[in-house]
Amino acid sequence: MDKKVLILMGSDSDFGVMKAAVEVLKEFSVGCDARVLSVHRAPDIALQAAAGARDAGYRIIICGAGMAAHLAGAVAAKTTLPVIGVPLQSGAMQGLDALCATVQMPPGVPVATVAIDGARNAGILALQILGTSDARIAEELSRFKKKLTEQVLEKDKKLQAELVR
Amino acid sequence: MDKKVLILMGSDSDFGVMKAAVEVLKEFSVGCDARVLSVHRAPDIALQAAAGARDAGYRIIICGAGMAAHLAGAVAAKTTLPVIGVPLQSGAMQGLDALCATVQMPPGVPVATVAIDGARNAGILALQILGTSDARIAEELSRFKKKLTEQVLEKDKKLQAELVR
Amino acid sequence: MDKKVLILMGSDSDFGVMKAAVEVLKEFSVGCDARVLSVHRAPDIALQAAAGARDAGYRIIICGAGMAAHLAGAVAAKTTLPVIGVPLQSGAMQGLDALCATVQMPPGVPVATVAIDGARNAGILALQILGTSDARIAEELSRFKKKLTEQVLEKDKKLQAELVR
Amino acid sequence: MDKKVLILMGSDSDFGVMKAAVEVLKEFSVGCDARVLSVHRAPDIALQAAAGARDAGYRIIICGAGMAAHLAGAVAAKTTLPVIGVPLQSGAMQGLDALCATVQMPPGVPVATVAIDGARNAGILALQILGTSDARIAEELSRFKKKLTEQVLEKDKKLQAELVR
Amino acid sequence: MDKKVLILMGSDSDFGVMKAAVEVLKEFSVGCDARVLSVHRAPDIALQAAAGARDAGYRIIICGAGMAAHLAGAVAAKTTLPVIGVPLQSGAMQGLDALCATVQMPPGVPVATVAIDGARNAGILALQILGTSDARIAEELSRFKKKLTEQVLEKDKKLQAELVR
Amino acid sequence: MDKKVLILMGSDSDFGVMKAAVEVLKEFSVGCDARVLSVHRAPDIALQAAAGARDAGYRIIICGAGMAAHLAGAVAAKTTLPVIGVPLQSGAMQGLDALCATVQMPPGVPVATVAIDGARNAGILALQILGTSDARIAEELSRFKKKLTEQVLEKDKKLQAELVR
Amino acid sequence: MDKKVLILMGSDSDFGVMKAAVEVLKEFSVGCDARVLSVHRAPDIALQAAAGARDAGYRIIICGAGMAAHLAGAVAAKTTLPVIGVPLQSGAMQGLDALCATVQMPPGVPVATVAIDGARNAGILALQILGTSDARIAEELSRFKKKLTEQVLEKDKKLQAELVR
Amino acid sequence: MDKKVLILMGSDSDFGVMKAAVEVLKEFSVGCDARVLSVHRAPDIALQAAAGARDAGYRIIICGAGMAAHLAGAVAAKTTLPVIGVPLQSGAMQGLDALCATVQMPPGVPVATVAIDGARNAGILALQILGTSDARIAEELSRFKKKLTEQVLEKDKKLQAELVR
Repeated sequence: MDKKVLILMGSDSDFGVMKAAVEVLKEFSVGCDARVLSVHRAPDIALQAAAGARDAGYRIIICGAGMAAHLAGAVAAKTTLPVIGVPLQSGAMQGLDALCATVQMPPGVPVATVAIDGARNAGILALQILGTSDARIAEELSRFKKKLTEQVLEKDKKLQAELVR
Repeated sequence: MDKKVLILMGSDSDFGVMKAAVEVLKEFSVGCDARVLSVHRAPDIALQAAAGARDAGYRIIICGAGMAAHLAGAVAAKTTLPVIGVPLQSGAMQGLDALCATVQMPPGVPVATVAIDGARNAGILALQILGTSDARIAEELSRFKKKLTEQVLEKDKKLQAELVR
Repeated sequence: MDKKVLILMGSDSDFGVMKAAVEVLKEFSVGCDARVLSVHRAPDIALQAAAGARDAGYRIIICGAGMAAHLAGAVAAKTTLPVIGVPLQSGAMQGLDALCATVQMPPGVPVATVAIDGARNAGILALQILGTSDARIAEELSRFKKKLTEQVLEKDKKLQAELVR
Repeated sequence: MDKKVLILMGSDSDFGVMKAAVEVLKEFSVGCDARVLSVHRAPDIALQAAAGARDAGYRIIICGAGMAAHLAGAVAAKTTLPVIGVPLQSGAMQGLDALCATVQMPPGVPVATVAIDGARNAGILALQILGTSDARIAEELSRFKKKLTEQVLEKDKKLQAELVR
Repeated sequence: MDKKVLILMGSDSDFGVMKAAVEVLKEFSVGCDARVLSVHRAPDIALQAAAGARDAGYRIIICGAGMAAHLAGAVAAKTTLPVIGVPLQSGAMQGLDALCATVQMPPGVPVATVAIDGARNAGILALQILGTSDARIAEELSRFKKKLTEQVLEKDKKLQAELVR
Repeated sequence: MDKKVLILMGSDSDFGVMKAAVEVLKEFSVGCDARVLSVHRAPDIALQAAAGARDAGYRIIICGAGMAAHLAGAVAAKTTLPVIGVPLQSGAMQGLDALCATVQMPPGVPVATVAIDGARNAGILALQILGTSDARIAEELSRFKKKLTEQVLEKDKKLQAELVR
Repeated sequence: MDKKVLILMGSDSDFGVMKAAVEVLKEFSVGCDARVLSVHRAPDIALQAAAGARDAGYRIIICGAGMAAHLAGAVAAKTTLPVIGVPLQSGAMQGLDALCATVQMPPGVPVATVAIDGARNAGILALQILGTSDARIAEELSRFKKKLTEQVLEKDKKLQAELVR
Repeated sequence: MDKKVLILMGSDSDFGVMKAAVEVLKEFSVGCDARVLSVHRAPDIALQAAAGARDAGYRIIICGAGMAAHLAGAVAAKTTLPVIGVPLQSGAMQGLDALCATVQMPPGVPVATVAIDGARNAGILALQILGTSDARIAEELSRFKKKLTEQVLEKDKKLQAELVR
């Protein structure tokens, strides 16, 4: 299993949320590496990882960080790969700080930001990006979308049944 | 020039901001179509465009919308292509409403959100996504990044010169 | 009992809040259907339900959704019936995102928005709308308003009694 | 022309925004009265107007107010008619205060809130409510919706033409 | 004990917070009445109470309410007595809505707003107002202020002792 | 004319807003002193003024300040007179910072906060406080309230006339 | 151990958070005093402490306060020492009020603000300031930074190990 | 004139605000260098500048940046010097994004944040830090503080004169 996605997080305590990205990639048989790499506490290693990611074979980098969440932006500064940012809910401001610090990037260096704590969606977005050039993943995404619809229909049915009772 | 990016906007008045996406794609010789398509005022056409985008040869969809910005989310519901959302600053809430309505997507249907009015970055993100499977674009992105650095250095020099005077 | 109100919600987990709308309608002997229908995960079915609602005999649609709450707006795009939106508190932003995404609709496509988690009020608003052409409901609403007043008076009395002790 | 909608505003300076409600009602040949009535500066008259509105033949009340916008809520307390609230952008908080003060109503007394400065949508919502029991209005709303779509298509065409040039 | 302060609250569930106002008045031997009176659910009685407050001998009215907190503003509209507003923390917006709806009053009708859930301070502010013309209360407020200082000093001492250990 | 109100402001540039308090007091023939006194730039003088205000014959202190608006709170710490705070709109945060810094006072030291830039209402609140023990002012406030109502009625008439044309 | 840092807090209940500043200073063998001193409840003592801090040998003052957090600003008004402000999360607004009241200082009187509840960082910032003229502390800070990096690397390793399993 | 302060800004357009820091340092005869250095567009050079700052003789680094303002945080990651952050008002969010991204730093890596656009205060804070070990600067800061007070007194006098007229 080729590892095409690099998942970085600012602290090991973020893994509780970020593992949802690992899991959805696994569901699609897409390999990934997940690393704890802080741009504030271990900046050189974080930036080296970002700078070398393309040559290491990665195609997409996912970064999860909270508070003044600089990880995604700093990584985006050092790579031409698409960088997906997951603002994490932590501390008093409950993720609003992380959302601002992740999404409001200056011209030239975008970060593809998903919802606060939206690690699963970060994984799906990575799959959609891979799916632009990988027919297998694109097809599996179509099936996945159908399953999403079926799940809704099933839940709708259950609710109807419940209401009749 | 193959058209790989579909740019949608909720109103023709959004083009003033959204044309920055068209322009940066042109700088990289990547073709795109730009359309005015409202999910609230012309929902069927918007959703058809989304549903048919992959088969029409597009690889990425960029959506710009303001206020209760539903366009990107609605389009993402109908395609497996990566969808980039540009929250637009309009009305009293100055883009905070559009940011919330674009980025806070539920699990299963991500939107890759960029900064408020960040149309140029939406274009660059599209290029980075294309660059995951297109070597020419990837190389041009490397050159682009170097130019970004050079521009900063030049501005730094100018400031030094100014300060000495 | 004729079913005049259609209640839609984005997820079955929303029913805990949304059932307050069902209940208040029942108190007034007004029938309703309640369905789980996601505009992001099952868009076609959601929009079909909206498009067909008037002909199916519904007079009002209530939509409850959280986060980037697009359900009410998408439904409003497909019907000329009045659409009541209930922003739901879920995720990190505690309903502010859903409020913005529900209320800030563009000209031409209004959503009648109630308070965050205000499902009971959505039901009462539906009754008030029905009451514009249904004398029985209008009368019952008058009685309901009087009861509201009486409940306040009773609580006031209890407080007085408590304070004297 | 029967006057079915009562439009209230907290100050004559609000008419610049609120007249959009008058105008859209006129487009549909629905009569309305518009009044300056402050719940803070002329409370008795405002509440009398609310209390007598149903008997005076009105079917819907639209209230526009800024800052600590109490007008809609106070009117809703005195009538069983549906009350539509338009939060107005005025003062330092740019309408966020008015939005909170209009939409966050307690259980029992809903206000159907539209976007900040959304007077035109308030008028359209009133028409949709009337359309639940008035076939002519319902039909005109269908035509109106089609026109909305056509306008979008026209704008789309213009943009295409512009882009080709 | 003459009753100079009238304390109103929108719901009996607010008494848990609002009783702090009752208590601080009692500490200063100032009588008060406390009532549950909703401007949304029992508007006539609330406004009557406000309109008759001066003649009933009250000198100050304290109003506590949550969400779209209109009580203080509505009461202020019907009296020339100073009205103190206590925004209460309830519902999803945690008191920000109540703060906006209480403090942002239009010219002509002020509400003296204290902190969210600041019922004790509302009571002290009432005492300060009474103290502008009542020498006994003014003197007791001086003693109260000294006690506040002494409490801080005592806590400071305890902390020093703790740190030495 | 006895000077019963002391008006303090953090900067002379605040006088443009704060003079509205001076003016409304003059309309009621209530004397006042207005001073520029910064708690950050001239703390001793500001606190002396606060500490000596009661003995100097003042009955109420009004404080206007922007940004991290500490003036009202610092003054309240040094007097038992009621202190009215006017948060001023200045700098990037447009008065939200000043509102928070003025209203969110800790238990024991209240500030009677009015709307952002609400200097006129601060003056009226001062008059209402004086009116708790001064029959002339209380009567004039009643007349003032009637005039407020009449002004609304006149504006209402004008709007009616305009609409008929 | 010379005491170079003075730590002030508005209430003894703040010590739970503020002790993190004491602890990090101790890790670097830098002495400090910690005091409970309220600018609202014991203003003279607080300002005296600030005014005398430089002569008492302190080099830096750290102030922690919640809500309308005036302590840091008031202290900064009375000293030329650098003042570090720690906005504390307390009450309904969860620290946003304290952040605004601490950081938004007017020209002339800066407060070096750290994150909400960021007491440990306040201590580290104090050490960095001392390190501008104290070689020992500067060196220890370098070692501290290396340890931060090592900790991240260790956590990264653990995560790798966990993922392999 | 020894250059002890390094001023960095993310873009040359920031110099309009940031020069206030240069100017206040000059008033105190403290030399500085000012550079345009983007952590997103020229990350290596920015981080080199930060890493080498102490050895280059700088004692303090001031960083001004807008939007997702990462400059101060990234610089703080690479130096043990105190880093002062100036959040700049730019783009739709008017500096709130920059404030969050600057102040909400994780434990271990503080940024001394001043007000939005508070460049002059950043300079004064730098002087206060230098003044902890430089008697001349400390003395000048005392004189500066006195001048601040005198300016307030003068403005107060002017206002008195104006009011008498």
